[in-house]
Amino acid sequence: MNFSNDFSDFTITDMHPPRPWYNFLWNDSFIAQIDQFGCGKSWYYSPAGVRANHNVTGTASDLGTVTDNRLVFLRDSESGEYWAANRNFRNEAFDTFQTIVEQGRSRIVSSFHDITCEFALSVAEDDPAECWEITVKNSGATPRRIQLFPYAQTAFNQLPHSPCMINDWDDSLSGLLIQNIAPKLNTPFRCSFMVSNRAPDGWESTDRRFKGVYGLHSDPAAVQSGQLSSQGTNFEWQMCFAFQFNLDLAPGEETSIRLVSGLAETPGAAKVLSEKLLAPGAFEQQNEDKTTARSKREDRLRISIGDINLDALTTSWLKHQISLGREWGRVYGRGFRDMLQDCAAVASFNPKAASDGILICLAYQYEDGNSLRQWNPPWTHPYRDGAAWILPAVTAVIKETGDFSLLERDVPFYKSDRIGTVLDHCFQGLEYLTENLGEHGLCLWGGGDWCDTIDGAGLEGCGESVWLTEATIYSANLLADLLEQLNRTDESETYRAKACELKEKLRSQAWDKDRFICGFNDDGLKLGAHESADANLFLNMQTWAVLSGTAENGTELMDLIERELATPAGYILCKPACQQKNPRIGMFSYMTPGTCENASVYCHGNAFKIVADCKLGRHEEAYTTLKKILPGNPCNPGSGVEPYAVTNQYLGPENPHRAGDANGTWITGTAGWIYRAVTEHLLGLQPEYDGLHLRPCLPEAWPEVKIRRIYRDNIYNIVLTRSDTPSLTVNGEETKGGPLPMGPAGTEHHVLLNCGSGPTN
Amino acid sequence: MNFSNDFSDFTITDMHPPRPWYNFLWNDSFIAQIDQFGCGKSWYYSPAGVRANHNVTGTASDLGTVTDNRLVFLRDSESGEYWAANRNFRNEAFDTFQTIVEQGRSRIVSSFHDITCEFALSVAEDDPAECWEITVKNSGATPRRIQLFPYAQTAFNQLPHSPCMINDWDDSLSGLLIQNIAPKLNTPFRCSFMVSNRAPDGWESTDRRFKGVYGLHSDPAAVQSGQLSSQGTNFEWQMCFAFQFNLDLAPGEETSIRLVSGLAETPGAAKVLSEKLLAPGAFEQQNEDKTTARSKREDRLRISIGDINLDALTTSWLKHQISLGREWGRVYGRGFRDMLQDCAAVASFNPKAASDGILICLAYQYEDGNSLRQWNPPWTHPYRDGAAWILPAVTAVIKETGDFSLLERDVPFYKSDRIGTVLDHCFQGLEYLTENLGEHGLCLWGGGDWCDTIDGAGLEGCGESVWLTEATIYSANLLADLLEQLNRTDESETYRAKACELKEKLRSQAWDKDRFICGFNDDGLKLGAHESADANLFLNMQTWAVLSGTAENGTELMDLIERELATPAGYILCKPACQQKNPRIGMFSYMTPGTCENASVYCHGNAFKIVADCKLGRHEEAYTTLKKILPGNPCNPGSGVEPYAVTNQYLGPENPHRAGDANGTWITGTAGWIYRAVTEHLLGLQPEYDGLHLRPCLPEAWPEVKIRRIYRDNIYNIVLTRSDTPSLTVNGEETKGGPLPMGPAGTEHHVLLNCGSGPTN
Repeated sequence: MNFSNDFSDFTITDMHPPRPWYNFLWNDSFIAQIDQFGCGKSWYYSPAGVRANHNVTGTASDLGTVTDNRLVFLRDSESGEYWAANRNFRNEAFDTFQTIVEQGRSRIVSSFHDITCEFALSVAEDDPAECWEITVKNSGATPRRIQLFPYAQTAFNQLPHSPCMINDWDDSLSGLLIQNIAPKLNTPFRCSFMVSNRAPDGWESTDRRFKGVYGLHSDPAAVQSGQLSSQGTNFEWQMCFAFQFNLDLAPGEETSIRLVSGLAETPGAAKVLSEKLLAPGAFEQQNEDKTTARSKREDRLRISIGDINLDALTTSWLKHQISLGREWGRVYGRGFRDMLQDCAAVASFNPKAASDGILICLAYQYEDGNSLRQWNPPWTHPYRDGAAWILPAVTAVIKETGDFSLLERDVPFYKSDRIGTVLDHCFQGLEYLTENLGEHGLCLWGGGDWCDTIDGAGLEGCGESVWLTEATIYSANLLADLLEQLNRTDESETYRAKACELKEKLRSQAWDKDRFICGFNDDGLKLGAHESADANLFLNMQTWAVLSGTAENGTELMDLIERELATPAGYILCKPACQQKNPRIGMFSYMTPGTCENASVYCHGNAFKIVADCKLGRHEEAYTTLKKILPGNPCNPGSGVEPYAVTNQYLGPENPHRAGDANGTWITGTAGWIYRAVTEHLLGLQPEYDGLHLRPCLPEAWPEVKIRRIYRDNIYNIVLTRSDTPSLTVNGEETKGGPLPMGPAGTEHHVLLNCGSGPTN
Repeated sequence: MNFSNDFSDFTITDMHPPRPWYNFLWNDSFIAQIDQFGCGKSWYYSPAGVRANHNVTGTASDLGTVTDNRLVFLRDSESGEYWAANRNFRNEAFDTFQTIVEQGRSRIVSSFHDITCEFALSVAEDDPAECWEITVKNSGATPRRIQLFPYAQTAFNQLPHSPCMINDWDDSLSGLLIQNIAPKLNTPFRCSFMVSNRAPDGWESTDRRFKGVYGLHSDPAAVQSGQLSSQGTNFEWQMCFAFQFNLDLAPGEETSIRLVSGLAETPGAAKVLSEKLLAPGAFEQQNEDKTTARSKREDRLRISIGDINLDALTTSWLKHQISLGREWGRVYGRGFRDMLQDCAAVASFNPKAASDGILICLAYQYEDGNSLRQWNPPWTHPYRDGAAWILPAVTAVIKETGDFSLLERDVPFYKSDRIGTVLDHCFQGLEYLTENLGEHGLCLWGGGDWCDTIDGAGLEGCGESVWLTEATIYSANLLADLLEQLNRTDESETYRAKACELKEKLRSQAWDKDRFICGFNDDGLKLGAHESADANLFLNMQTWAVLSGTAENGTELMDLIERELATPAGYILCKPACQQKNPRIGMFSYMTPGTCENASVYCHGNAFKIVADCKLGRHEEAYTTLKKILPGNPCNPGSGVEPYAVTNQYLGPENPHRAGDANGTWITGTAGWIYRAVTEHLLGLQPEYDGLHLRPCLPEAWPEVKIRRIYRDNIYNIVLTRSDTPSLTVNGEETKGGPLPMGPAGTEHHVLLNCGSGPTN
């Protein structure tokens, strides 16, 4: 179980982790969420909100069950023995059974009875289709007659009007074609198809005959019989695409078969698409393009700490995970807050994608400055934090590129005729946040902020949120900085002053002995205060007090967190879990203790903490936090999280049954924040308007870190060390700090920073 | 595979028919659709439209797949061998494996390795709960240590907000309790539970542990291990209720365990309900009540033709099937047309239920006389035939009871402040039908009529329907008859005249050489005419021409049907199948040829034909039709239809892959019409306002039929025979016809009718 040396893949050798380990394969409008067996749903979702299931059931976040919808059976036609090469239902003693997880592809490799089989699954670059490549090799010493049965269970029959739907062989397509000709369908796709690049020796159209009415996917009747019926079907409840290939394999001989399965508007379009995808070299080209894209992401920032997991995550896999968020939001929907955070992280390795993402998001900002919480599908609950995420994303892009032109781009406001520049959107957002204050002078809570589930505390327009006030301070200062760059000093000062005012209000109104409270609900009830019976200490209000500069003594706050909120799996979001159900707090208070925002180890909040620790030079605390929440935490070995992706949470110690379990996968803002926490704060690679600054906060465990960073077309080769005396050498000359030098495009720089052996930063 | 002699059950001995054979178990608001293994979903649906899934996934019409959501595993704790007693996944050589299908209960009986197990499943009489009784017997000669594992997969986790949901043992309940405390749920039920009447030796709350993350329901990890974890769970994707009972059984010893699993609003309500259902004698009482209800239905009309299948269907099982329709509509929704037809059939064996049903339906009639097509959930497509079904149902009840008071009952119109008597509803309906005529003087087609899928022919308000015109004539005459009874002669004559006018229009405008056409669409296109390339002959317009008295030579029409539409599986609804897709005809034209209304053997239409045949004295044609569409048709043995229920269709010969298959089950208006065709038309038991008439149309295959009929509290013992000379003897006296005599309640009559050996009727 490890990353390859070039980080290009991760090999799963224990095929039965505590929960399925997922890979996401996607293009702009088609996505597959597959587990280590290559099973799981795939579907189409257009930016216009049109959804079409391709293979299988379920919602994006189904976890803990294996959906056996893609199966690759092998059968020895002489002995009649058969096995599912990608699934090994009976847990037989395969000589090899492993999955190589790549960015955009998974390859399931098995070897049994001297037959080696690789099932490689990817998604087409630009089209709504899956690409399968199955390679079967006779690794024994005698000739073999092997039957290969690739099987896909289609979700297309979930469309209405099955009396109008037929699945049959199509001669023109040379493959299986489902057509639904019902006059009204809520999808552009009337066709689903599967085509192979070699003529099959049989095919099947329905589960009724493939597995048998009373059969099981583990032991399909048709595979047992050794011959598919090659009959079509219609008016059916579970259609399928199954193929049979009879292979005569000499010793050592191998053969590869490609199949594509996708969605199309017409049979003609299905033919065009399958021919394109099955053209010689097309799979190779797709793989090459994926490798190129990965290399491009990696080249922007390569890190060598010496811990291959952390190196692989930071240099490569977190970037891939963040890209999923940037392109598909949280997959189940596109969130304003979520995608802007991803954009802020994407900025460092793909500033174009980041600014594109910002422009997409800002179109969901209302004219008053607030935003829709999520689109595709829309959530209209009146959350109020959207605007707080605009400045961090916009300034991250400009600090990366040095190019202020993003600010001039026009974007319409949501449900409005008004069009504004990106800078107008920034102003409008800040205005919304700073002008809507409550009785204590803090930002109104409304339908909620970052904490989605405190969704009932401010609906009447009185409740006030401490976190949102902190985030507003943070954004107001970012806007003030930006305005300074634009030489709009007066306005800058205005926002600086607003930030100061809010800070004062927080210090006077939201401070409770040793902590910032969480807020006041509409009834004036203090949340997160000593007086509360439960949930009287929250993580985020303390870390963001540091991030926003509100904290007068950040170190004491962070010490409090260490004392009160630490667990072996990470830091819990609040303590003790909320037990008093209160609709005037919201869903938060109804959730099982230890679950989600109600006192789980919510990794997003842990990432905030790492940044706050770094701000205060607490490298050991930051590092400890990082180690706890990354997949390899030895104190939480059964969490179930994939080693190549970060999760959104580990259930907290108060969870009655599942403490430590990582229920989530891939789709989380944690990825972006962890990435930034490591690269910008622990390693200290901080883009500013004037260039790249280096302000590491190195833990003792990292005596030497090598970094290669491309920034504004300059190449920085950086070595960070930790020995007695701090020093900084840039291109052979000792210097004192400030931004690293920049030259013409392609200029290479060599930077040696010794952080010293004491506290850094 | 046969009915028991008292018709109380049907035993399935071949457990693998071409598709699963279903039983429906229901009360007013809770229903289970289970197959021969006891698997399948159950759910709650209130009259107010609130739905809550209890066990499992899928929609009401899922067919062809087995959902393994209720499993009864047995394990020999000495050998470790285990098997699913109700499912026999591995198709092992069980000594016994059969299902006894009862009305309201199924019992799956297996015997293997000298252990006999019966799993009896029913639904509570008044509550949203399943009742399980599992009896395990050591039928061998040595003592045995057997573990019993009943397992139910719950659909409760399909509710949103799984972070608010826990499944755990509840001490107060003494059972497993799922609670979802999310603040907003679209169900009154926050609890799902399963409780046994004996303390279990273990239990399980999640599929993750019961079958194992990578395990299969056929070989659950926990059953293999022999010990359930007895651990709760939360934030879970697939919860379950599983129990473990360790049974020491002496030779011949048997033990019974009861479990109830249901929905409740609160844990307290769950406790009350489970205690009620598990109280000693409660199961027995429920079974007794079911037997009483069945006997009551049967007592109203018992038939002995000598064909046990037909006797069982007519005396008992069709009535049960019709009752499902009367109470749950088509299960997926409550249809105005559907339920009124069921009421017309229910009238003869439960007139109270019929009139209750009529009152429910009429509340969905609009003020203009038309009706909603379906409610729960509503379909608002503007079908126009609703009103045509009111008179047949209302008059059937009155003719059965002799009580006209139903006409005086007040019912509000749908979405209106107006309240009208039932008679007002009748008038309003007829007014709607007779006042909205098209260019050819026929009834406007609007969004459709009986043929749901010709839903695009009249949307612009021009298209005219022949069938709807015939049905209107039929209803107008029924209203005229009724008004005569009410001595409202002038009005009666008005409706009689309207019927005549429409008849003339049909004869002059809708006749095409040898057939009535189907209608004119909005463009004036003739459907069902010789000039059409396809679908140029329709069944229903000819049979209803006979039923409505429109046909001038019915015999020729029926001969045409025999020549053109007969197939070994029954009569197809049109010929040839429509191939030209036309939105201005509707969905009909898009359906796969041979499917549903597009040229399947649609049984409802076949039942109309039987009635038309009988009207013309064509007993042999009527009988042949009946035999073809009933489950036992030897010419279509692989249809898959349950022997104890009628289906809505057999796919027609033009279906490209599935000709003869019976995809539907239970929920069809066919049941009521077949029942009436047999009892009122073949056997000729015709209730009229003046009493019970006897007008049989006996096929030669029925030389003697014995009937016992309760009608207006009189008991009629009738023997129909077929020998040389017709004669009628009533209570020992030869008579000439007219209504059978009626005496005070309880009077018993003996009727001997010899129909003669020639054509009858």
